[in-house]
Amino acid sequence: MRADARENRARVLAVARELFAERGLEVPMAAIARRADVGVATLYRRFPTKEALVLEAFTEQFAVCQSVIEEALADPDPWRGFSTVIEKVCLLQTCDRGFTAAFIASFPDMQSEARERTWRNFAALVQRAKDSGELRADFSPHDLTLVLMANAGLTGVPVEMAMAASRRLVAYLLESFRAGTDVLPPPVPLSLDLVLR
Amino acid sequence: MRADARENRARVLAVARELFAERGLEVPMAAIARRADVGVATLYRRFPTKEALVLEAFTEQFAVCQSVIEEALADPDPWRGFSTVIEKVCLLQTCDRGFTAAFIASFPDMQSEARERTWRNFAALVQRAKDSGELRADFSPHDLTLVLMANAGLTGVPVEMAMAASRRLVAYLLESFRAGTDVLPPPVPLSLDLVLR
Repeated sequence: MRADARENRARVLAVARELFAERGLEVPMAAIARRADVGVATLYRRFPTKEALVLEAFTEQFAVCQSVIEEALADPDPWRGFSTVIEKVCLLQTCDRGFTAAFIASFPDMQSEARERTWRNFAALVQRAKDSGELRADFSPHDLTLVLMANAGLTGVPVEMAMAASRRLVAYLLESFRAGTDVLPPPVPLSLDLVLR
Repeated sequence: MRADARENRARVLAVARELFAERGLEVPMAAIARRADVGVATLYRRFPTKEALVLEAFTEQFAVCQSVIEEALADPDPWRGFSTVIEKVCLLQTCDRGFTAAFIASFPDMQSEARERTWRNFAALVQRAKDSGELRADFSPHDLTLVLMANAGLTGVPVEMAMAASRRLVAYLLESFRAGTDVLPPPVPLSLDLVLR
């Protein structure tokens, strides 16, 4: 690829990430082309469908998400590993609406493999924190969806305020996730797709 | 008022509450008239503006909300009083989208008096639960907004599922609201109006 083509491509991806973060995945291709200062035809030549563009912009964020969970698994402290994931994922969700969409991956190709691997790693992280006695035994991996849905309720306000509110909500929730004795109502088998509704 | 006029009025209010609950306050007057089986002109004769209709349908729900808080203040157990309010308000919010709108009362006439009284009573409930040593000292009345915003994130799914998810979220949050030792990030001065955004 020529230098100017590479540059164009990088700019389109940066703009796409920016716009997905601001307005979600619904943003039209034309708006992306306009802000990236390329023709719509050029944009479609590089990314034939919006799916292709999203997948490309998304790859990096999905990698971030996977590495957040993998780093957490490498942390020798099971509780710190677990709680760091909750904190980072909520922070990413609050700062970047595209992240949640990326995280949930509405694209079948991503879903089957990458999504399952992330989910499996998260389940392992949960199990390890339970085994150490620091995470309550009745915490369900579905509670991650519960956290993301609740955290999504904090968006739609200025980002600084949303971040402060999210930090406080997450601190509250982590406190209650610590091994306790009270019995909770049963977990709800929430699909991650629900977060986007 | 004649018997049939009274009947019409009651039916319109029941339908309005039903539709506000299903679709929020945005539902058009025409849709309410249609479902209540009255002419649009008749509807406007009884309720000259949507505000008038909302205010009327809303009065009852606002009264429910006030009585929930007043009953809680009358409860001799400060923690039970406090936690019952959180549970009931979240349950009402989950079952009835109109309730949150009602609770937040976007109508200036209601705001000034009824809203302030509710807020004052809630603050008294919080103080009493803190004085008893059962509610953490750094709980802020603004955390009620945080709870409502988080709980609002659980809507948009079938109501049975939303209710089950809400019960679990509320149980987690109440557990963390109990007097603890951990220091939370500072409270965010969230306005209740934010819940509707």
